[in-house]
Amino acid sequence: MLDFAGRLETVRSRMEEANIGLMFLRPGANLFYLTGIPHRDDYRTDHNAYGDWAVGGYVGPEDVILTAPRMGGQYYKKNAEGKPWFKDVRIIDESEDPLDVMREVVESFALNGMKLALEDHAWAESTLAFRALLPDVEFTTASDLIAPMRMIKSDVEVELMRQSGRVVHGAFEKALAKLKLGVTPWDVENEIDYHLSTMGGSFNSFPTNVMFTNPNKDPSLSLNKTERRLEPGDAITFDFGCVFKGYASDFGRTAFAGEPSEEYRRMHELVLAAQAEAMAAMKAGEITAAQANAAARQVMEEGGYGPEFSHRLGHGIGVTVHERPFLDVMDDTVLRENMAFTVEPSIRIDGGYHNRVEDVVLVTETGGVSLYETDHRLYIVS
Amino acid sequence: MLDFAGRLETVRSRMEEANIGLMFLRPGANLFYLTGIPHRDDYRTDHNAYGDWAVGGYVGPEDVILTAPRMGGQYYKKNAEGKPWFKDVRIIDESEDPLDVMREVVESFALNGMKLALEDHAWAESTLAFRALLPDVEFTTASDLIAPMRMIKSDVEVELMRQSGRVVHGAFEKALAKLKLGVTPWDVENEIDYHLSTMGGSFNSFPTNVMFTNPNKDPSLSLNKTERRLEPGDAITFDFGCVFKGYASDFGRTAFAGEPSEEYRRMHELVLAAQAEAMAAMKAGEITAAQANAAARQVMEEGGYGPEFSHRLGHGIGVTVHERPFLDVMDDTVLRENMAFTVEPSIRIDGGYHNRVEDVVLVTETGGVSLYETDHRLYIVS
Repeated sequence: MLDFAGRLETVRSRMEEANIGLMFLRPGANLFYLTGIPHRDDYRTDHNAYGDWAVGGYVGPEDVILTAPRMGGQYYKKNAEGKPWFKDVRIIDESEDPLDVMREVVESFALNGMKLALEDHAWAESTLAFRALLPDVEFTTASDLIAPMRMIKSDVEVELMRQSGRVVHGAFEKALAKLKLGVTPWDVENEIDYHLSTMGGSFNSFPTNVMFTNPNKDPSLSLNKTERRLEPGDAITFDFGCVFKGYASDFGRTAFAGEPSEEYRRMHELVLAAQAEAMAAMKAGEITAAQANAAARQVMEEGGYGPEFSHRLGHGIGVTVHERPFLDVMDDTVLRENMAFTVEPSIRIDGGYHNRVEDVVLVTETGGVSLYETDHRLYIVS
Repeated sequence: MLDFAGRLETVRSRMEEANIGLMFLRPGANLFYLTGIPHRDDYRTDHNAYGDWAVGGYVGPEDVILTAPRMGGQYYKKNAEGKPWFKDVRIIDESEDPLDVMREVVESFALNGMKLALEDHAWAESTLAFRALLPDVEFTTASDLIAPMRMIKSDVEVELMRQSGRVVHGAFEKALAKLKLGVTPWDVENEIDYHLSTMGGSFNSFPTNVMFTNPNKDPSLSLNKTERRLEPGDAITFDFGCVFKGYASDFGRTAFAGEPSEEYRRMHELVLAAQAEAMAAMKAGEITAAQANAAARQVMEEGGYGPEFSHRLGHGIGVTVHERPFLDVMDDTVLRENMAFTVEPSIRIDGGYHNRVEDVVLVTETGGVSLYETDHRLYIVS
């Protein structure tokens, strides 16, 4: 069981240390992490439910009050049931001014000169409404309270992330079976999404991405997911994941249609070597996030593909797919036991071949350990 | 052609009237509407690109400066090409402090005591950063400047929304062909999504929703999209749409597996009558949004299904699927020519049948006119 009560206790002691009397969280990953209200797939364009800018969890020193729109509010009521840390689920009716509801909730917490912490991605509209209600209160962001907690995974979280990886593994096997000459990237993405859903994924971590690349083809065609058809000489790169029981996966492998050239095989070995080098170096307490990035980058540079490894090595992962720390040049966080990262070196030749591999890796005292069991070979489509 | 230059001119005169010297827009629908940078499908969980809270369009009285993350920044560079209203696309490198970039951009606009307008959904993190840079500047939200412009559609916009409806129509025909006993809602949703993509949809307006309902089945099964299988006596409700060339569609119809009861046929006629009644009443200048909602609601109440019509009648639609005004009790906006709304009455019996219809409707002097050509009948699956 995820220990929401314990997390609330921890965040409250952090709030007290930082002189924060109230924290406002939008529906989403942080609200799930602290209170157990599942985060859901989002609208692709604006939803604009009535009063949505006042909707979220108001976390005080003793109680949490949840506000919810009337349309769809039953979701919050249902998921708050049996969770004693919720004092109330306050539905915002269309007959009310949402600012009045926000005032009512805020006034039920006595701030007494303490600060208000806003979730980093709370809206400007919400921020300005809080400012109108609390003209003399100091505002701060909430991620500095929550992100450090989220960085270190409990055993239960690690097990859920392993399971999220098993869902991904299953979908990848189905995708491989679908990889025949003539299929489109869309066909394969679609096969993946179907199996992610049927195997328990709540929603995708991000839009599933299957790319066919080939230096002998017009590269703009690579982006046409419904018309590009697999042909001999294509490399196939996979990047996908899902959220399973609240925890994200993020996964990458590479396949090839027909017989790859020696150079392409070398590229694949190089990407694997960069990943292995970084993982071996990811010993708890002995390396920073930026240094892990540098370890992989050095392998890529020595192999002649430095410029083509054009992105960070990876990112923290947990209740969201991209979270602190980041395996990137500017992140000096020292890696600690039970941090979880993607480790995802790649080669992306402009107008040419791509190759990538990605695992979610747990930091241990002896180095990084992949939570995924999928073989790293270059898969051949014959 | 969409007249971005004209829109910028209009919004700037509105900014001047409101004493606003700078407006900050995140990547998304408003940035597309004013500057032509296409809005895209979003990450399902946090993306957390470096400096993302400083990324967006900074719209001043004469220039627009776009900031972009280094990873993925080429998208912005490419889409800003040939658009003379952009003075610069400023890439935020991982070696920089994003706050310094924000300062550099903000200082290039001389505010001189004027206000800063923040897009309503800009983040708290961005808002607090602007506050740190501009301690004495008054902040306001941007939607009051832009939303009234977006409400009235130009002929070009109306044509794009018609085309978005044709994509939906095509996907619906394919979905009907897929509706056989034994299929799952997921199969049908998937068929729809495939055809939305292949026919030019950039991304879905929202997650496609196909529901099978039946009072003789456990209602919780209705929510299991991959296991529930179509059987005789099921009602099938559709709710989906896509964004096509920047403009959203949102569509609904109902089908039935086997022979519906007389009462179910009456429910369907009632929903159609409520839609027709509201559309007939939607004459420019003669009715408010709330009154249009009331007109449909009265039909539903007289037909005995008032409580089962449990949501607003509809919402404005354009570059986002849900936008002002709202056909709802609290919206007193007077309908004007070339406003576009969904008109979507429904019956949702708790644990029982659902029925729904939805068109996008243009307000004219003589009433509302559907932009969609799809027949409204109850489709029978035999």
